[in-house]
Amino acid sequence: MSEEHPRSRRRLALRSARLEGFSDGIFAFAITLLVLDIALPIRSPDLLRSLAAEWPGYLAYFVSFSTIGAVWLSHTVITEYLDHADQVLLRLNLLLLLVVSFLPFPTRLLAAYHGQARPERVAVTVYGVNLLLSSLLVSVLWHYSTREGLIRPDAADDDVRFLTKRLNPAIAGYLALIALGLFLPFVAVTGYLLLAFYFILPIGLIRPRRIRVSPR
Amino acid sequence: MSEEHPRSRRRLALRSARLEGFSDGIFAFAITLLVLDIALPIRSPDLLRSLAAEWPGYLAYFVSFSTIGAVWLSHTVITEYLDHADQVLLRLNLLLLLVVSFLPFPTRLLAAYHGQARPERVAVTVYGVNLLLSSLLVSVLWHYSTREGLIRPDAADDDVRFLTKRLNPAIAGYLALIALGLFLPFVAVTGYLLLAFYFILPIGLIRPRRIRVSPR
Amino acid sequence: MSEEHPRSRRRLALRSARLEGFSDGIFAFAITLLVLDIALPIRSPDLLRSLAAEWPGYLAYFVSFSTIGAVWLSHTVITEYLDHADQVLLRLNLLLLLVVSFLPFPTRLLAAYHGQARPERVAVTVYGVNLLLSSLLVSVLWHYSTREGLIRPDAADDDVRFLTKRLNPAIAGYLALIALGLFLPFVAVTGYLLLAFYFILPIGLIRPRRIRVSPR
Amino acid sequence: MSEEHPRSRRRLALRSARLEGFSDGIFAFAITLLVLDIALPIRSPDLLRSLAAEWPGYLAYFVSFSTIGAVWLSHTVITEYLDHADQVLLRLNLLLLLVVSFLPFPTRLLAAYHGQARPERVAVTVYGVNLLLSSLLVSVLWHYSTREGLIRPDAADDDVRFLTKRLNPAIAGYLALIALGLFLPFVAVTGYLLLAFYFILPIGLIRPRRIRVSPR
Repeated sequence: MSEEHPRSRRRLALRSARLEGFSDGIFAFAITLLVLDIALPIRSPDLLRSLAAEWPGYLAYFVSFSTIGAVWLSHTVITEYLDHADQVLLRLNLLLLLVVSFLPFPTRLLAAYHGQARPERVAVTVYGVNLLLSSLLVSVLWHYSTREGLIRPDAADDDVRFLTKRLNPAIAGYLALIALGLFLPFVAVTGYLLLAFYFILPIGLIRPRRIRVSPR
Repeated sequence: MSEEHPRSRRRLALRSARLEGFSDGIFAFAITLLVLDIALPIRSPDLLRSLAAEWPGYLAYFVSFSTIGAVWLSHTVITEYLDHADQVLLRLNLLLLLVVSFLPFPTRLLAAYHGQARPERVAVTVYGVNLLLSSLLVSVLWHYSTREGLIRPDAADDDVRFLTKRLNPAIAGYLALIALGLFLPFVAVTGYLLLAFYFILPIGLIRPRRIRVSPR
Repeated sequence: MSEEHPRSRRRLALRSARLEGFSDGIFAFAITLLVLDIALPIRSPDLLRSLAAEWPGYLAYFVSFSTIGAVWLSHTVITEYLDHADQVLLRLNLLLLLVVSFLPFPTRLLAAYHGQARPERVAVTVYGVNLLLSSLLVSVLWHYSTREGLIRPDAADDDVRFLTKRLNPAIAGYLALIALGLFLPFVAVTGYLLLAFYFILPIGLIRPRRIRVSPR
Repeated sequence: MSEEHPRSRRRLALRSARLEGFSDGIFAFAITLLVLDIALPIRSPDLLRSLAAEWPGYLAYFVSFSTIGAVWLSHTVITEYLDHADQVLLRLNLLLLLVVSFLPFPTRLLAAYHGQARPERVAVTVYGVNLLLSSLLVSVLWHYSTREGLIRPDAADDDVRFLTKRLNPAIAGYLALIALGLFLPFVAVTGYLLLAFYFILPIGLIRPRRIRVSPR
């Protein structure tokens, strides 16, 4: 059995490289597609005012960009700690990519239905559920990796615990904001932005990790 | 002649890296482009109902996403077993990418013509033929690789036979579903979804492969 | 001076990796974007006929896909022989990418203006000029690399001469077809398809290169 | 503590590979998306004239392509000198990508509002601010890297000083052109093109760097 190890390892390493390349492609593409959803203002002599009137589109763009950016950052951290991938992980990752690449659609909904009482609530709820699912699947990806021993044996226990602590409250946050969005839609959207910032801004995350590597 | 081997090997290895990068790019873009085909519902006071009425669009999105995901997974497995590429393989791969990157078009057809008796049958048939071709070309890619000795010499015979066994029945399945689609269009679409799941779900595939690599 | 070599080499190697990644991204994206230009047929009870009437769109799609595929194949061969990149090569490559990523626009023109005597000639000419420029820039890239000594010193002279011989006649071919297109637009388009096949089909290219690597 | 270094280095190296892959993806998509913004001319018997009338669209395409190309080149140079990334750098990079992937929107504005006195000025100003921000963020990325010691210790001081000298005047240039654009919109656009060329054209940059590596 020990003879087979080098082969298996190489095969798994290759697969993990393509997992990262494919995922990076989808993250990058989904994030860039968002700009197509920003509507060109109707031709009018006062372009500045028409542009300003499109603010829900810019906000939706910014929230979605930040969320995909945050998911990408978490995904990067997970694959960094990954020792190897298995067949189930590849599928879970595909599910996460499905949810991420779907996000441009609810983003378009959000921008299109702003200010129309009831439709706005529906749009914000659909948007929130999409964000919740992406956050949930990042968490599932991480928990699966730790439970199945796919994490690098030399990963510091502190780091693993730190990431675990960070992923769970976000899910609770998304659930709370979806409920809030039924009453105050754009307050919820602002909340989604803050939640994305919670992952993006390096407060805390940066504290224990600022490593100064001495020159070789 | 033996002197030339290291050079040839390096050249071929490089080419295979770009084959994977280029293919991953096209898979990732084709899968993300699908979301552009989901039509924004017509502005109506009852957005929830309008959204629900668009279900053929979501179903088409989901089936196409699953199929491209399944093709990507098979492609990943094939390149894993690949020792090196040759000129013909690069061209066969290009043909597969042509078919995959065309898929967003029949997906759009499927969503647009739902519920219109005769046009629906045409749309479902065009869609099915596209899926059949992609499945066929994955199979051709694999058979060419095994026949021409492009497979890594250390690949276990069991694994090679296993993959061969899995690729052929899918083609028969697609042929049967195309015929069925002439009478029951959306039953065939559900069948296409199940066929994609047959490749995506790791039943069987996972059985012989759950490798636990001991810490270095 | 000899001390500085390892550093320079590593820097240049990195740059060449990003040149390939960035180029592959643009090739893959431009080739996948083409599908967006295939118009959904106007809703009609006879979808099959409407689809058939869109044949210039499919032909344009197929010619553009084949051409970008051919350029990608040539690009792959060039970077394979590349020992290192320099600042000028990066810029020439950027110019090639400009031309390649512009191709979806004339492709759209071609499909939209089919059958309208004079506009069709304009569209086919614009299209041909774009193809000519891409072919020309591939050739420039290759000639610059050989002249400036960027080619790997261990590249066989035969291979270098072979590629040089292949790139030049294509330019003459494109010039002839642009002239022909002024009189017989869609004959020229068929010619563009054949020219792309001349690069894609491995006749000749495969002859001296089918290397059988013995198992390690 | 010294025991931890190899692990940390490997983790950081991986992260930097994905930073490059993800960034290259976004640069490549943003640059290719620009072509979608070139409007198909209104069907008219004189296609040549209609095409010529769309010149602001081509100019906008060309300026934006050149600018993203220039940012990509600078980004490539920065990551070449990078020894490792830290958490803050990943976020600053995300901010740069936000600005770059937003550029297709003002590019569309520019093409759509050409020739309409006041709206044109607004469009050119929005466009200029986007370019300024991208230039500013490239500069911030570079200054942060040098200040925080993320640069490779073996980087020549000359090269570092050279790049620093090149990045700052561009910001002043963009500020001047934004002001000019309020009075002479399309003169400013031409200025933006020249500024992009200032980065793309290898004058100066090529001078100290044309390294001729002797054959191995």
